Parts: sequence; structure tokens; C-alpha cells
Amino acid sequence: MKKHNFSAGPCILPEEVLQKAAEAVINFNNDNLSLLEISHRSKPFVSVMEKARALVLELLGLENKGYQVLFLQGGASTQFLMAAYNLLNKKAAYLNTGTWSSKAIKEAKFFGELVEVASSKDKNFTYIPKDYTIPSDADYFHCTSNNTIFGTQIKEFPKTEVPVVCDMSSDIFSRQLDFSQFDLIYAGAQKNMGPAGTTLVVVKESILGKVSRTIPSMLDYQVHISKDSMFNTPPVFAVYVSMLTLQWLKDLGGISFIEQVNNKKADLLYKEIDRNPLFQGVVEKEDRSFMNATFTLKKDNLKERFDSLWSAAGINGLNGHRSVGGYRASMYNALPLYSVQALVDVMQELERTA
Amino acid sequence: MKKHNFSAGPCILPEEVLQKAAEAVINFNNDNLSLLEISHRSKPFVSVMEKARALVLELLGLENKGYQVLFLQGGASTQFLMAAYNLLNKKAAYLNTGTWSSKAIKEAKFFGELVEVASSKDKNFTYIPKDYTIPSDADYFHCTSNNTIFGTQIKEFPKTEVPVVCDMSSDIFSRQLDFSQFDLIYAGAQKNMGPAGTTLVVVKESILGKVSRTIPSMLDYQVHISKDSMFNTPPVFAVYVSMLTLQWLKDLGGISFIEQVNNKKADLLYKEIDRNPLFQGVVEKEDRSFMNATFTLKKDNLKERFDSLWSAAGINGLNGHRSVGGYRASMYNALPLYSVQALVDVMQELERTA
Repeated sequence: MKKHNFSAGPCILPEEVLQKAAEAVINFNNDNLSLLEISHRSKPFVSVMEKARALVLELLGLENKGYQVLFLQGGASTQFLMAAYNLLNKKAAYLNTGTWSSKAIKEAKFFGELVEVASSKDKNFTYIPKDYTIPSDADYFHCTSNNTIFGTQIKEFPKTEVPVVCDMSSDIFSRQLDFSQFDLIYAGAQKNMGPAGTTLVVVKESILGKVSRTIPSMLDYQVHISKDSMFNTPPVFAVYVSMLTLQWLKDLGGISFIEQVNNKKADLLYKEIDRNPLFQGVVEKEDRSFMNATFTLKKDNLKERFDSLWSAAGINGLNGHRSVGGYRASMYNALPLYSVQALVDVMQELERTA
Repeated sequence: MKKHNFSAGPCILPEEVLQKAAEAVINFNNDNLSLLEISHRSKPFVSVMEKARALVLELLGLENKGYQVLFLQGGASTQFLMAAYNLLNKKAAYLNTGTWSSKAIKEAKFFGELVEVASSKDKNFTYIPKDYTIPSDADYFHCTSNNTIFGTQIKEFPKTEVPVVCDMSSDIFSRQLDFSQFDLIYAGAQKNMGPAGTTLVVVKESILGKVSRTIPSMLDYQVHISKDSMFNTPPVFAVYVSMLTLQWLKDLGGISFIEQVNNKKADLLYKEIDRNPLFQGVVEKEDRSFMNATFTLKKDNLKERFDSLWSAAGINGLNGHRSVGGYRASMYNALPLYSVQALVDVMQELERTA
């Protein structure tokens, strides 16, 4: 029986996507060749890449608005570096909401002055700072939309005149936003988009070409744009599975549809966390992530029993990140509502039997 | 019917590897979860990564010799940059044998003085330069072992006191060499090792840590080594398929076994190219690649007939690279001898019927 997969990432993908992906590994496009053994310059794969790039713009509502889509490699960790390499002339402003923001700041420091406009480090990143000023002379403002590790999520993004760069690795395609408020969005695929191994970049072309430094080819967004995201051999399989997942989302009804499902899942779980006297949430209620719910047992001595209950219920991936502890239920797009119900049932069973 | 797949890369992989890869996309490790939706920090995947790294050292005969193995992202194109970032203080020596060497040179120029010790550009890279001097004060010497595009291959590597860096993307694991003569080997996976999406790095640790510049984390070999090749989320699927392919090679008898098969395939095809009056090889005989055989028709007017013959015989991927033209038969490890025989049969049929 398929497990209830709450893994934080790589994470659950739609069953029909996995089926099609497995078929393509044996025979892709009815050509009697595996997807893994054809040229990335062959027509069938070029059309996969084109479709994936077009679906991203369509789903985000960014068609004909000057944005380019790239499927790169190296994860968000490489984007920490590339964003700064391509955009940072003198000064950049960063909001520090946790591990990933901190890493982004560390890598960008090579390239100029970094202003940390606010940080929630004082309370172990359990909230999203709200009152801060973005210097008007910053080359860009950088934030992390959703903090996978601590379970916080930015609900309202600041209004600013400077370009906004957003690491959306763990909540892209999960909720409707005015995506045109961002100038550069990047996201590792392995949450809501596909398997580990490709990184989505959505960039407004008009912000590029303004730094004076020489940029190595592989780190230069303009180089990748000029080659239609095929400057070098792309990660063919990861791009294909991403395309399938994007198509699955479009067929369901797009982001506005999945957002309703995600809201229901998060409501169901957070209500139980707040109601059940054995549990407590980790972060400020108003900043709770709808993707990653972090919570703890009020009494440590129930841990063994709770762990065996959820494990017996076929639940997977519920342990909190090693830097936080407790539990983390990741509820990405492909996780069905009934999996959240299964978790809630176990929490209630613990309450009845503890 | 499965095609005879002469694709230059991504290229043919062993059938049993493709079968196991497809199974893992549905159910990995009998855990009722897809390989694509489990944490890269889960025990089953950590053991895949460890096994893949160990198999590389074992197959190359580099165990207990101070080498570290990494599975990174970004292709050889990213290694052009990383090698220089990590090793180039003042001066480096490069041998220019074609497109990939030229690109490596271009990226390394950001970091110091580049000495091109020799180049075969004068004859469109149809031979391997042999008499050249490597400056003894170079930080390293860089070469490309096999030129996929032009079809040349270095048979003997120069003896030098400076560290040797080798791009082995298109012939690693295909022939026995004393791999300890290299200090840094890198290779995109998508020829003899696995699908596109991961890059193998084999590096002698003692050559690292000698440059004064600050290296961004994702470009720093020492960072990746310190995290056992898991500094950030690795390309899980590509690493798994690489591990399967390495295991397949080991089970067959390792490099010394596959080298004999590769020699037979290359002999069969090159003999026909030399014998058949309708064809001619593109490169110097002594420098012919045993992975990528480039050849042309002596008479252009036979092209249409030859193309329809090989296409009808179920042969795939025989067109030469757009920068060379003609034909290119790539005979990577997983290509069976009977596929080469099928191509030779077609060449002889053309001769009989032209």
C-alpha cells in the first residue's frame, strides 16, 4: 500500500506522473528508446523543454510580461550564488528568515555589501519579520517565501521599488500570488515541481546585464536564455518529470485550484494541532506555512507511542529537521487530503489512548 | 524492436539498468515509495550514494590512494569553471583538442594566465598534438581525453610533474589506464555512466586548498567532500542510475573486460570504413576515438540512399555533429557488438547496391 508521504523534500509527486515517468525510462515517445538515452537536441526532448518552460509562464500568469524561464542544475544553493553574480553591483538587501536565507546571504557576501533588513533569528526563526525598510539604493531585495525547516511562510511581500528576488523552492505553484511583483524567482524542483536535479529560474530579462563583472558562462542567466535553456546538456529526466507535474497541475485547474486544496489540508492539520491538548505548534500562527507544519508533543514521554502509531498508519517523513526537532508534516501539492486526515486520526488516537 | 542506438550522448544505457531504474520510479527499495519522493538523507539513498562513490574508486583502481569521489550537478561545463576556481593561482596549461577544450580554456581565463601548450585547430581538430612542453611552473595541465565531436582520443598522456586535470566525459570507464596519473578527473554522466543530470568528479585531495581566493560553497570541492557529496540535495535519480550502471560494469568484469568489447566494436567499424570504397574516416588513424567514430561518404549523392538504409535498419543517432557534418557512430560501453555489425551490414549493402 502506498504510504502517506509527508517527506519535506524530495517529496510526494502525483501517481500518474510517476507512472508516465517510469514508462518513459523504458520507451519514450513510442520511439523504442528510453528517455535517458536520446539526444537532448532531438525533437521530442526539445519539445519537452519548450512545453515545460511555457507551462511555467502560463501557470504563474507571466506570459508576455518580459520573463524568461530556465531549467538549470545545482539547486537553490547555486542560485544563492548566481543571483548575486548576475545582479549585485554594490549593495543588496536580504531578509533573514532561516537556514536558507542565511545561506543565501553567506554566498552573496562575496559580491558586495549585504544589508540584512531584518531577521527572526532572535526567536529561532519562528516568525516572519514584518516592519523593516528596504534601502532604495539596493540592487535588489532577496527573501525566502517559505521556510521548509522552521515552517514559516511569508503571506504578504513588501512593496518596494528595487527588484525583488525570491527563493520559492518550497512553495512555488502552491498558492496564487501576483507573480509579477517578483523580478527573479528560483526554486529547486524537488517540492512541488518534480524530482531533485533541476532548478527553476524565472527572470525578468530587463533586470539583467547591469553588473560590470565578467560572469562565467554557466553562471550567466543571459547565456542560458540565449540558448533556450540548452547551453549545455540539461538534466533531461528531471525536466521531463517537471513538465509532467506542471501539466498535471494545469489539468487539475492550475494554482487557484490547488491553493484551495492546500488550504483545506493546512486548516485540517493546524486545527487539530491547536485543539489536541497533547500537541503544540512551533511557529507564530499568522506566519504558519501551508506547506510545512511544524509541531511538537507537549510531553516527551509520548514520543515513542506517537512514533509507533503514525508509523503503523503508513505515514512517512514526519520527523522534524535535525536543527529543530519535533515533527514536520509537509503537505505539498501532490499530498492528498486523506493523508492529512490519516495523520489527524493518529493524533486523535494518541489523545484517546495516552 | 529496440533500436541500434549510436547517439553521442545522452546515449545508450544497459537494458537491465533501464528496467531497474523504471521500477525504482514506482517503488524503490520495496518501501512502497518512489525513488523520486524520498529524502536524500534517508538511509536507502545515502547507501546508494556511498555505493556509487565506492564503485567509482574500485573500477578506476583508485582505492586508498587519497582520492575523493563526488557526484555534482552542472555538467562538465561547470567543471571547466570549478577546476580553475579551485586550482588556478597564476598559470595553467591547456591542450586544445576541440570544442570542449576550447570551452574549458575560455572559462579558466577568468582566473589566471592560460598557456595553450598545443592545438589541433589548424586541421579542424582531426588529430591529437603530441610534441609539446608543459611549463613546470603551471598550477596544472588540462586535457580532454576523448573528443566526442571530432572523434579523436588521446592514447598516451604526457608525463609531467604538474597536476593533471582531465575531462573524461566521453570515454571514462571505457578503457584501462593508470588513473593515478590524474589528479582531477571529471565527466558528465551521460555517456558511459548514466543519464544526464550528474557529473562525476574524482579528485586527489592533496591538490586542494592551495589557492588564495575565496571559493563560493557550491563551487568548492572541499565543501562537497566535507559533506560526502551531499552538501545540498543531490540529483537523486541520476546518481541512482549511475550506481546501477557502475554495478553492471563491475558485474561484467570491470574496465578491463569492457575495453576488450570496445576494442572489438571499434576494430569492426574502422576496418569497414577503411575497406569500403564509399567511405572515409575523418581523423588521423592513430588518434581515432574508440568511442566516437567519425566518417563521411566519399560521394555526396549517396547520402539519401545511405540515410534511408540505416534508418530502415533501426539505427539511431548516426548523424555527425552540426559543426563537423558526415556521420558519427558512438559506441559507448552499453552498445552491443551486434549493433556495430548492423551498421557494417548497411555500409556493405550500400556498396553492393550503389
